[in-house]
Amino acid sequence: MHQTYMFFEEAATLVNAELDRLVPESGQASAGLEKAMRWSLFGGGKRLRPALTIAAGRAFGADDRRLLGTAAAIEMIHTYSLIHDDLPSMDDDDLRRGRATCHVKFNEATAILAGDALQALAFQTIAEDGTLEPGERIKLISGLGQAASRMVVGQHLDLEAEGKDLTLAEIENIHRNKTGALIAFSAEAGAVIGKASDEGVAAVRDIGKKIGLLFQIVDDVLDITQTTDLLGKTAGKDAASQKATYPAAIGLDAARDLSVEIEAELMKDLGGISGDTEMLAGIISFIAHRNN
Amino acid sequence: MHQTYMFFEEAATLVNAELDRLVPESGQASAGLEKAMRWSLFGGGKRLRPALTIAAGRAFGADDRRLLGTAAAIEMIHTYSLIHDDLPSMDDDDLRRGRATCHVKFNEATAILAGDALQALAFQTIAEDGTLEPGERIKLISGLGQAASRMVVGQHLDLEAEGKDLTLAEIENIHRNKTGALIAFSAEAGAVIGKASDEGVAAVRDIGKKIGLLFQIVDDVLDITQTTDLLGKTAGKDAASQKATYPAAIGLDAARDLSVEIEAELMKDLGGISGDTEMLAGIISFIAHRNN
Repeated sequence: MHQTYMFFEEAATLVNAELDRLVPESGQASAGLEKAMRWSLFGGGKRLRPALTIAAGRAFGADDRRLLGTAAAIEMIHTYSLIHDDLPSMDDDDLRRGRATCHVKFNEATAILAGDALQALAFQTIAEDGTLEPGERIKLISGLGQAASRMVVGQHLDLEAEGKDLTLAEIENIHRNKTGALIAFSAEAGAVIGKASDEGVAAVRDIGKKIGLLFQIVDDVLDITQTTDLLGKTAGKDAASQKATYPAAIGLDAARDLSVEIEAELMKDLGGISGDTEMLAGIISFIAHRNN
Repeated sequence: MHQTYMFFEEAATLVNAELDRLVPESGQASAGLEKAMRWSLFGGGKRLRPALTIAAGRAFGADDRRLLGTAAAIEMIHTYSLIHDDLPSMDDDDLRRGRATCHVKFNEATAILAGDALQALAFQTIAEDGTLEPGERIKLISGLGQAASRMVVGQHLDLEAEGKDLTLAEIENIHRNKTGALIAFSAEAGAVIGKASDEGVAAVRDIGKKIGLLFQIVDDVLDITQTTDLLGKTAGKDAASQKATYPAAIGLDAARDLSVEIEAELMKDLGGISGDTEMLAGIISFIAHRNN
């Protein structure tokens, strides 16, 4: 585990420096907007998605320099989605990573615009990343666009599902879109930048999809079993707003068993990847056994 | 004038067909979200920005087929910005193009997500446009990203300026970002796709900037002089919310004079473009003399 924490710390340091460069404290014309973007960007996130991109990229021998722009772009999309999801008309959450959410710290209009600006900057960042060949950039922008669209579709399905009894298949469909697509793309992007073969990219994409599923199941379980203090966000929210979750559909114990099963499958899947997959394995273990 | 209306109609028909193809009635996983996207996309907009892209592209001999994806992407960005600007926490408008705004017709969460989805799809559309070379797509995505960022910066500056006395320079700075950047890019994109020289692209970009300025001055004047019925959106809103406008800064007559002056300048600028600029001239006249 120690090595994984070291890797997470290293990946976060690299990505934070890239984000700091891309969203400087007073780079643009509207200081208030940048403050809001930076408030949410540097809110102490785990940088799980960028870590996945870096781990997958390194497994295929990609240079860090070629990975960081895309890793930062993915984190921008993730951060914008958190800002918008927390809004009063959506999940209405005041707390995120132990701090005030963007609309609470600033105001609703600023939060909406900060999210909008982060999304635009994410695509622009990849388009202008001179370390990547034009064909690579286009592939990555296309993939990121698809993942970002699916994320929004998932959030909309999730909101529509509140208070309804869903089947496990319906819940999985929500999460495959809402969180799964971007997590899967995070891993896939590393393989693309590492110039993996089409089969290699497809294998990593499939692993990424399973990682997304694992992440969501554990997230749902933690929402029930942990305190607000430990999570850094409001605990018990899913049940309170009658969200579609795995524990709600199949029970808490079955959800836990499922996460153990998926973790084991993933470790087997990693065997099919040529290259050093140690860091990917570490991330998977971390996701399966995290407590916040 | 007749010829210009014919061109607008032709351009709108072409772009609407492209948008219909890109956002089909039930293409994706969330029918409710698509409905909201289509409600705002097909709300009877003038398609001014796509018309500019097509007119500028044709001036440089570009095939329509190569122009339409980018023209549609620009209209998606414009439409998403209208949806978000109309939200209760922003301009709080119930009426747009004579119909209910997206959050009134659906709900606030759906409107935020429909806007988010349109932004993602805009970038994805250009990335996946096989009629354009990879280098062209990257240049267009980078330019669209910059324009979309500046639009958001401008909207934020505009909100921050409410109730304050601004100088003419401050007002111009807001509008150069809020509406100017995307209008300028709409023209520039046509020149890029038409494979204009760097000087040609720069000349069209400058013309686009002036068109954006002209558009905004006329918009501000119409908000004072026209009725809600004719505008299809709430008239007199700028004054009511103490918005930074040209008439507020320099007076109604001076604002009108300025628009006449800029129109004349633009007609002179068009002389520097080799190629058929008749449709561009028509659009400029239309913008200067429109009454809604």
